[in-house]
Order: sequence, then C-alpha cells, then structure tokens
Amino acid sequence: MLISIDSVLSKDLVGQFRETLRQARWLNGKRTAGTQASSVKVNQQLDDQSKPAAGLRQQLLTPLGQHQLFLSAALPHKILPPTFSRYCAGHRYGAHRDNPIMPTGGADRMLRTDLSATIFLSEPDEYDGGALTIETTYGTREIKLGAGDLILYPSGSQHRVTPVTHGTRLCALLWIQSMVRDNHQRLLLFDLDQSIQALTRKQGGEDTEVQRLTGVYHNLVRLWAEV
Amino acid sequence: MLISIDSVLSKDLVGQFRETLRQARWLNGKRTAGTQASSVKVNQQLDDQSKPAAGLRQQLLTPLGQHQLFLSAALPHKILPPTFSRYCAGHRYGAHRDNPIMPTGGADRMLRTDLSATIFLSEPDEYDGGALTIETTYGTREIKLGAGDLILYPSGSQHRVTPVTHGTRLCALLWIQSMVRDNHQRLLLFDLDQSIQALTRKQGGEDTEVQRLTGVYHNLVRLWAEV
Amino acid sequence: MLISIDSVLSKDLVGQFRETLRQARWLNGKRTAGTQASSVKVNQQLDDQSKPAAGLRQQLLTPLGQHQLFLSAALPHKILPPTFSRYCAGHRYGAHRDNPIMPTGGADRMLRTDLSATIFLSEPDEYDGGALTIETTYGTREIKLGAGDLILYPSGSQHRVTPVTHGTRLCALLWIQSMVRDNHQRLLLFDLDQSIQALTRKQGGEDTEVQRLTGVYHNLVRLWAEV
Amino acid sequence: MLISIDSVLSKDLVGQFRETLRQARWLNGKRTAGTQASSVKVNQQLDDQSKPAAGLRQQLLTPLGQHQLFLSAALPHKILPPTFSRYCAGHRYGAHRDNPIMPTGGADRMLRTDLSATIFLSEPDEYDGGALTIETTYGTREIKLGAGDLILYPSGSQHRVTPVTHGTRLCALLWIQSMVRDNHQRLLLFDLDQSIQALTRKQGGEDTEVQRLTGVYHNLVRLWAEV
Amino acid sequence: MLISIDSVLSKDLVGQFRETLRQARWLNGKRTAGTQASSVKVNQQLDDQSKPAAGLRQQLLTPLGQHQLFLSAALPHKILPPTFSRYCAGHRYGAHRDNPIMPTGGADRMLRTDLSATIFLSEPDEYDGGALTIETTYGTREIKLGAGDLILYPSGSQHRVTPVTHGTRLCALLWIQSMVRDNHQRLLLFDLDQSIQALTRKQGGEDTEVQRLTGVYHNLVRLWAEV
Amino acid sequence: MLISIDSVLSKDLVGQFRETLRQARWLNGKRTAGTQASSVKVNQQLDDQSKPAAGLRQQLLTPLGQHQLFLSAALPHKILPPTFSRYCAGHRYGAHRDNPIMPTGGADRMLRTDLSATIFLSEPDEYDGGALTIETTYGTREIKLGAGDLILYPSGSQHRVTPVTHGTRLCALLWIQSMVRDNHQRLLLFDLDQSIQALTRKQGGEDTEVQRLTGVYHNLVRLWAEV
Repeated sequence: MLISIDSVLSKDLVGQFRETLRQARWLNGKRTAGTQASSVKVNQQLDDQSKPAAGLRQQLLTPLGQHQLFLSAALPHKILPPTFSRYCAGHRYGAHRDNPIMPTGGADRMLRTDLSATIFLSEPDEYDGGALTIETTYGTREIKLGAGDLILYPSGSQHRVTPVTHGTRLCALLWIQSMVRDNHQRLLLFDLDQSIQALTRKQGGEDTEVQRLTGVYHNLVRLWAEV
Repeated sequence: MLISIDSVLSKDLVGQFRETLRQARWLNGKRTAGTQASSVKVNQQLDDQSKPAAGLRQQLLTPLGQHQLFLSAALPHKILPPTFSRYCAGHRYGAHRDNPIMPTGGADRMLRTDLSATIFLSEPDEYDGGALTIETTYGTREIKLGAGDLILYPSGSQHRVTPVTHGTRLCALLWIQSMVRDNHQRLLLFDLDQSIQALTRKQGGEDTEVQRLTGVYHNLVRLWAEV
Repeated sequence: MLISIDSVLSKDLVGQFRETLRQARWLNGKRTAGTQASSVKVNQQLDDQSKPAAGLRQQLLTPLGQHQLFLSAALPHKILPPTFSRYCAGHRYGAHRDNPIMPTGGADRMLRTDLSATIFLSEPDEYDGGALTIETTYGTREIKLGAGDLILYPSGSQHRVTPVTHGTRLCALLWIQSMVRDNHQRLLLFDLDQSIQALTRKQGGEDTEVQRLTGVYHNLVRLWAEV
Repeated sequence: MLISIDSVLSKDLVGQFRETLRQARWLNGKRTAGTQASSVKVNQQLDDQSKPAAGLRQQLLTPLGQHQLFLSAALPHKILPPTFSRYCAGHRYGAHRDNPIMPTGGADRMLRTDLSATIFLSEPDEYDGGALTIETTYGTREIKLGAGDLILYPSGSQHRVTPVTHGTRLCALLWIQSMVRDNHQRLLLFDLDQSIQALTRKQGGEDTEVQRLTGVYHNLVRLWAEV
Repeated sequence: MLISIDSVLSKDLVGQFRETLRQARWLNGKRTAGTQASSVKVNQQLDDQSKPAAGLRQQLLTPLGQHQLFLSAALPHKILPPTFSRYCAGHRYGAHRDNPIMPTGGADRMLRTDLSATIFLSEPDEYDGGALTIETTYGTREIKLGAGDLILYPSGSQHRVTPVTHGTRLCALLWIQSMVRDNHQRLLLFDLDQSIQALTRKQGGEDTEVQRLTGVYHNLVRLWAEV
Repeated sequence: MLISIDSVLSKDLVGQFRETLRQARWLNGKRTAGTQASSVKVNQQLDDQSKPAAGLRQQLLTPLGQHQLFLSAALPHKILPPTFSRYCAGHRYGAHRDNPIMPTGGADRMLRTDLSATIFLSEPDEYDGGALTIETTYGTREIKLGAGDLILYPSGSQHRVTPVTHGTRLCALLWIQSMVRDNHQRLLLFDLDQSIQALTRKQGGEDTEVQRLTGVYHNLVRLWAEV
C-alpha cells in the first residue's frame, strides 16, 4: 500500500528543520549504503554524529508519535533514528530495495523493515526531477509531495529517486518495524479503524456498534501484533 | 462460544418432525458411538437406514441453509447428515468429546468437527433432567431450549446430557466443519457481521461505512476461509 | 498484484468465440448479480443455460489449463465456469467487490475468490470507454487489453467498468481459487518460478542452482498450497 | 478461559499489604483510565509515584514468579507493574475492555495485554457487591475470591466491577503478555503440563511417557512461544 | 522424519502380490516420469490400465487403512492409487524429488505430496544394490526393509534407488496428502498418540490423564488438520 | 537439520582458547544443569564468574558474528553467553533435551532455544569416546569434528555426549534464538541464499536473476523473521 499523510510536520517546523540543515555537515551518501545500494546512490546525507542530527531526530519523532493517522496506518513498533538526505542537481538514487533487517544501534539490536517513510522537506516546485518512484505489482507510481507531507510504502517494494536536474531536494527517511508485519492485515486494521473513527464522530463513542467494532479491532490487534 | 438461535425450525415444522419420529424405528444409541462414548451413552437413535431419516434430514437442512443468523455464526462448509436422538426416562449421555475427524460417507470422505449443534424438538416442560451440559474453561453451562431452537458449541468442549428422570426428550444433532476453523476468528467475523447488519438497517447498504466494513469482512473471510 | 498475460487465446480462437457469441442469447446482467452489485450493473450476460455456453467454457478452459505463465501466476485450484459479458453503448458496471465465497454448482460446492480474471474479446479500438478500472492501495489503474489478452487481479480489490460510450465490448470473466491463497506468497512463488525458468533456458535443467532452486520452490508450494 | 489460583499470596503477606495500603496515598481512579474507561470508572488507585507502590509491586511479583501453577497457566513474557485499587461504598467500574497494547515505561516500550489478573486483597465477606463480572461467549461469570487468591482472564473479554454497596474491596491488578499469545494454544499447553506433572508424581520423572510428553511440550513451546 | 513400519502386509499377502505381479504386464518406467525424473529413471512399472493393477491397489489400500501405526504416523487425507515398480539387474532411479502437486484423476483433482511411502515386496537378500537412499539435512540414509514392510518419508527430500546389480527388487509406491501438512506438527501428534496408547495399555482408557491427553490430541488435530 | 561449518575459529585462536582454559577454574557441570539433566551430566564447566570467561566469550562471538555461512544458516537473533565444557576420562552427558526457554540474564530476559551449537576445541584424535550423538527422526548421528569446527543442530532434538574413555575433550556451547524459528523455513532460506551466493560469484551481483532472487529472499525474511 501507499499511504500519503499530509502535514505531519507543520510548515513552521519544516522551516526550522531547513534552517538547521542548511548549516549542518553533509557526507557522501555512499557511506551508509550497502554494497549493492552503494553503486546506485548519488546523494548527500546528514552526518549522524553531528550535533544537529540528534536534535532533529527528536523533533521529528515527537510529532509523528502523536499523529493519529500515522499511528493508525503504520502501527509502529520500532523506528530507526531518521536520516536526512539532500539531492542537489545531478544527484539520484537508483533502483534498490531496503534490507529486510537493519541494526538499530540500541537495546533492540535489530529492526525488520516493514515500512519505509519519506517526509518531504522541500516543496515540489523547488526542484526538478527527484521523484520518489515506487515499482509495485500494480504498476509504477511517481511521488512528489509538499514540504511536511509523508508517504508510507512497503520496504519490500523496489524504489528509486529519479535524478534531480535543478534545485535541491531535502527529505527525511524512516524505517519502521510495525506491530503488524503483514501489509494486508495492517491495511484491514487501518480500514476498520477509519470506520470506527467516522462512526464515533457521527454517533458518539457510546454507540453500540462503535463499541462492538472497537472490540473487533482490539482483538484483531491481539491476534496479529508482535511487540 | 455458545450461540443459541431461536426458532430455526417453526413450531409447525417441529410438529411434523415429531409426528414422523413417533412412528419411526429407533435403535440403541450405542450402535453409533465410538468405544469410549459407548460406555457412557444410554439413549435411542433414529435408524439411519430407515425411510423417514432421509426425508427428515433434508427437511432440517433446507431451513438451516437459509437461516442468516445460523450461517453467519457457523459459516458452515460441510455438515454431517443430522442424527435424531430420543431420551426416555433413565436415559443419559455421560461426559464425552466429539471425535475431531468423522467420515462423511460422501465424496468429501472426512469432516473436521469444528462445531456441534443440538436442535431441541421437545419443549423444556415435557421432560425433567436431560439438560445439555457443556464444560468450558469459563465454567459449566446447562442448556434447555424451546422446541425448534438451536445451540451451537465447539465440538472440542466436553459435554454430556444429564439423566432424563421423566418424560421424553427429542433432539437433532449436527456436526459442522466451518469455513473458518478457529473459534476466535469465527466469532470476530460474527461480531463484525452483526455490526454491518445493524448499520445497514439504520443507514442503508450504500452507506460509506457499511461498504468499507463489508470490504473488511470479505477480506477477512478470504484470509481465513478454507473451502 | 496485476498481472497481464498476452494472447492466452489466439486471434483465431477469439474470432470463433465472437462468431458464436454474436448468435447467442443474451440476458440482463442484473440476473446474476447480488443485491448490492445489482444496482450498479448495467450490461448483458450470456445465457448460462444456452447451448453455446457450455462449449465456449470448455474452449476457454482448455488453452488456459496449458498456459504456463497463467498457471505459474495463478496456481489455480478451482475455476468457476467462465461467464461472458457484453457491454453496448450506455452499459457499465459500477464500483463493486466480488463475493469472497461463491457456490460452484459442482461437487466442490464452494469456491473462495482469490483471483479474478478478465479475458478481453474485443480489440481496444472497437469501443470507447469500457475500461476495467481497479482501485488499489497503490492507486487506480485503467486497463484495456487486446482481444485474447488476460488480466489477473485480486478479487478483493474494488473494481468497475467505466461506461461504454460507443461500440461493443465483449469479455469473459473468471473467478479463481488459488492453491496459494495469499497474494504476497503467490507473487513470491511467481518471481521464484520466473527465475528458475530463465536460469533453465540459460544453463539447462541439470544445473546445480536450477535443481536447488526447484527444491526451494517445491517445498514452498508444500508449505503454502491447500488442495 | 478463566483460571482461578488459590493462595498466590499467603494470608500473612496479604496482611502486610493491607497494612501498607491503609496508610498509603490514594488517587481518583479516573486519572489512569483512557477516555472511554474514564466515564465508567469510579474507584481509587494507589499513587504510582508514592513510596510504598514500588515495594508492594516487588513483594507481589516475587511470589508470582515462583508460583508453578501461575507460570504454567499464564506463561508470562512481560508483566506490567501491578496497580492497586480500592472500592469503597458507591464505587464501581462499568463494563470495559482493556487496551490491547499498553506502554510499559521500560526498555520494552510496549506490552500486548493477552491476560488480565485480579488478586483479591479483601475477604469476600468484608464487602457487599464488588463482584468482578466477566462477559464471555459462554455467558456471564461473577467472581469473588478469598484474599490472596488470583483470577486469570483474557484481557479481550468485556468485564466490570459491580457497585460496592458496603465495606471496602482492595485488589491488585496485573496485565500480562504471554509467551503464547493464543488463548486456545496456551490452554492446550496448560492441560498437557498438568498431565505431565500428575504422571511425574505417580511414575517419576524418568518414566518413558513423562520424557516423551515433556519432549512434546517443549517442542510445542518452541512452535508457539514469542520471546 | 523416516518412520519404518513392519509388516503392513502379511507374508501371505506379499506372496499373492508377487504371484500376480509375476504374470502382469510391465512398462518402461520413463512413461510416468516427469521430464526431469525421466532422464534418471531406469526401471519398469506395472501397466496402470492392466487388469491386475486395480485389484492389487485395493488389496494394498485395505490393510493400510486399518493399520493403526500407519494411520497415526501418516494421518492420511488422500492417497494416490499405488504404483508398482520392478528393478532388474542394471535398473536404478537417480536422485530426484517428487512433484509437490500431482493430479489424482478423481474428483479431488489434485493431491499435495506431503509423504511418500515405499512398501518392499522383495526380501533384502533377493537382490543386491537397490537401496532406497534418502538425502536429508541429517545425512544420508540407505533403506532396505523386509517384504511387507513400509518406510514413510517426506516427499520433499531428495531420494534415489541405487542400481540393482543382481536379482529383482519389487515394491509398491504411495504418495500421501496428510491431514496435517507440516512434518514437525505431524510428528508431535505421533509422539503424543504413542504416549496415549502406552498409557491406555497400562492404565486403561478411563484414566484421568489418558482422557486429558486425548482432549489435547483431539484439539491439536482440530487446530492443524485440513480435510 | 545438522549443519557443520569448518573453521569458525582459526587453529591459532583455538590455541589461545586452550591456553586460557588450561589455567582457568572449572566447576562441576551439575551446577548449571536442570533437575532432569543433572542426573545425567558428568563433566566440568568453566566458572562463569571467573575472569577469563568474559574475555573468551567475546573472542568467540566476534568471529561468529562475521562468519557468513554461520549467519546464513542460523540467522541468529539472540545468542546466550557461550559456556565451556571439559570432559576428562569417565565424563559423559547422558541423553537430554535443552529447555525451550532460557533466562538470558540481560535486558532480553528470555531466549527461545531454536538452535544449539557445539564448537569443538580439541582435535578428534586427542580423546576417545566423547562423540556428540544426536537422535533424530532420521536416525542417530555421531559427530566429532576438528578443533575450531562448529556443528549446528535443533535444540529440540535429543542428544548426548558418549563417555570419554581417554584424553580430554574441550568444547564451547551456544544456544541461539533464530530470527526464523521454524527449522524448515530457515533451511529453505539457507538453500535460497546458497544459490544466490553461487549465482553472484558466477554472474555478478547486477545479474537480473540475482536481483530477483534477492528480492524473493528479502521478502521471505520479512514474512518469517521475528526480531
């Protein structure tokens, strides 16, 4: 599934991020790519060890952890510390798939990449090219969202960033291990939750069907969630 | 789960059944019990090979196959030809569990007993004792329903019929292999379907949430059903 | 997944089908639609009971059952007798989902609709509109293939046929229960099989890796197939 | 399943708990309830941050962690720090279900509530009303155990505490993520373990069948346990 | 797993089989092998269409269907009509794996080969070579059993028959779809059943632990069996 | 499965281990055995609390964590701190199975023993007897490898060390929770990975089939891995 979520970061917050990123230290993106990805990755990446990186990561994770639509769609269990990428003219990231297991560097040790998320930090009219292009068994989709918007996609699908021909493309990248590993099951829960939210708005939380459907949702989570 | 469903047979139809059964040939119930059940089974059973048996079976299965609540609760895939039992004073069926796999005598060859159902053909005030008693991990339940009513229970739970001390207790027995083998999953589907039915009555079948929840229901069936 | 397979029927065979269909008896498509689908279905359907229907079905199933790419992609366990539809100007089929369980009318009794397939019997330039439109979590896809081509899609996805504004659109429809119910698992098998075929063409069937990968494929089938 | 386990705390230990709790600081129970539960929760809860809370929790978890019957029935993987509740006259907790995922406040971050446990700290004759009432698909069960006794029930079942009309009801509450998530599988393991214990007492641990059944138990745990 | 079962056919019955087979019509074994197996199969096979074949098959399946140890180990759901092979001097069957799905020629249409079985119809001292050799992840096993004995092995393991250098090797071959597809689960059930049988012999069928373990066995079958 | 891996430790490193172990403090092996194992365990074990133990463990885990074949075969998620055993003349370890769940002593708290590994630290000609003997459903295997070699076997299989009659047998023992719990699934991944490695060596990492098969491997890991 591809789920795009508008405004996970406010334009103000995006502005602060960009100001910080403008002054930060950028490294060659190949340093963090695996052998295979390395040959197709031509971009820059924020120095993980640099001072602003830790702050930006926290500034990013806090609003995400409170964003109901994101939580409902991703059901996150673990999230890797976000990385920040910069694509200037000539940069690109050729077709690749994300590794299924990544080290977390923390007590968890390992994370299964169920979902990948890109948060756009540049407006689409600030650069040419640079579309996030996802190959799916339903065809190819090109994605360019507004600054502060997020796109969620299965880490197992092949994807690439087409060459930037003009301007600069800034984005943040997240890898997520979901409580519910299977995309199809997670989507069923998302649909069910959307219906419960809509019925609650219309009929109130005390409504018999809202209560019964919530019970179904909770017990499907118990059936499927690994935490 | 225990699900009781009222009036799966009309009182009229029950009357016809009883009239036919009154004139039929009854055999010692031990003839159809396995070694273990045989020692605890003291009742009578309609001769399977007798002429009325085939007719009664069909008369029973036809209304069941059109009973929405039964279909929604049991999601039947295969049903063994029903058997008919008679408990007179002194009869009983001691504690036993139904075999997990039974021969069907048909092209299917085998049936997994996910669910058992008893349809009561006598009114509760026509006999003393004779309660269907089901032991569950939630405690013991004694069940005596009206003529024409049905109780659905997991075949894996231990159950018995307490001694009849007076009068006659007639009933029909069914073993069902459900499309959805797991009791917990089947119950979640039942709850979801009940909500969809209630919302449809209130808001119509074209309602957005009815449509979305129907999609969730259909895809859970695809995920779980074995046919 | 959407998998389109070219030329499952030869142009010659398509010609014969069309000639037969031209003279056949067509009924209002609502007759075979469920309550919900009925309100959105405006087309014609070949009379199932008519003489040509049985012949056409067999003529369709025989080449399909020998088509390696179709077999590898669908891993069919049961296929419903195909139906034939005709869309003249003004006809359409609004958004709907296929029922998850359908009666087969045969010894199997029931079929789980894992996959739907449309075989186009008209060339795309013979009609305007009439696109098969599939809504997926990856976006919307409009499909119009050549006569004799087939598109395979999950029955659980919402789909519709846009109004035909000019000309006639003929097609055959199939519902398939796959040996491998899960779309994701079936796709993994399809990819693995495609690699094995490609390596066999290049290195021969006796090649060590061809043999080892075939063992992996066979054992994944054993792990996942329900027959 | 409902499994009641006598005397997980000795009467002496219960006496110490009550003495400590008598002097402790109690807060309004609504403070820790979610939005939905808040409207139906009328009781008091021990201040989590207060000094005695930490000590009591450890005093509770230590004997539980050594209680063979509890371990065999719950197969605990994670246990939330216990909470302590007090119901005085007029207090009650209306019908609710426990959330499927709860934050742990520890390195684990999240816990799936497979099982809930109530440990009674008041004798049943010290208060009127205040029955723990669990709605199951097998009917409703009212539970009032002796001080020091524990009842284990699936967190997914709806439950409530009926109004206390006289006296004071003290209890401790636990939420447990089991190594074996599925209630049915966990119960099968519990039954198998009970048989192995009984056979070991009778025939010794070196008995061939005790050894073989232990092998079956161990390999079922390997098949089902998530740790 | 490899499970050898002695005397599924009595020596008398083996004698009758051999007499019938001696006079029967034998075909080149390549006729029934797939493309890959064909190149490594050098033996003879009983003409399936010949008159004795049908009789022998039934004579074989009847005792098997009543053999408790075979039923407990294989939990057969479907069995392909047995084939009979003859290896004379110089014959062999090179390394191969059995296809995971085979056509049944009956109403079932397809069978998943979970288990293969060889029933030896010659005594080991009647021929040199001709060992059934099974490659497993636990090493290689060479099997030569007495006439009337059976060996059961997973169809997914690579196996071969080493060249016969002297004498004649007769055997019957079966492919079985088990009610329980997973070898590991089926073995756990086999172990549990063996313990129940042993305890029943020692303590009787009414023993509490025999009853409880039977309940566990039955419910594991319900959990795992596909029929 | 049994997978033996040569030279996970170099002969040099083995020499250092032996020198350190020669001077270390050894305890009676019964101290760390469970009740059942205790009665059959007659050997010595390195004092876990002793100074050299921590160093040796790290020296062992570092090369293991970089050994591609070991990683591919075991897909380790958690590894218990290795223990070191010494068998002198007369020592043995009778038949036993490893516990399915073991405490880790770390933040993880518990580990499921999917796999056991023995690393031999003595050459086979340095001692008589002392074979690691594994009972499998495929028969019994006796294993004696060179110093520095490792054997990987399912913890659920019964195993023993036959009595040492002469000389000294040193070894290290590991218990592993794999990312992929099921032995059969893990073996399929191992086979697939071996093919991918072989094709990469022959055709390079950019080869179409290498890329496609890598995608299949990655998505099977996502389907099966628990981390």
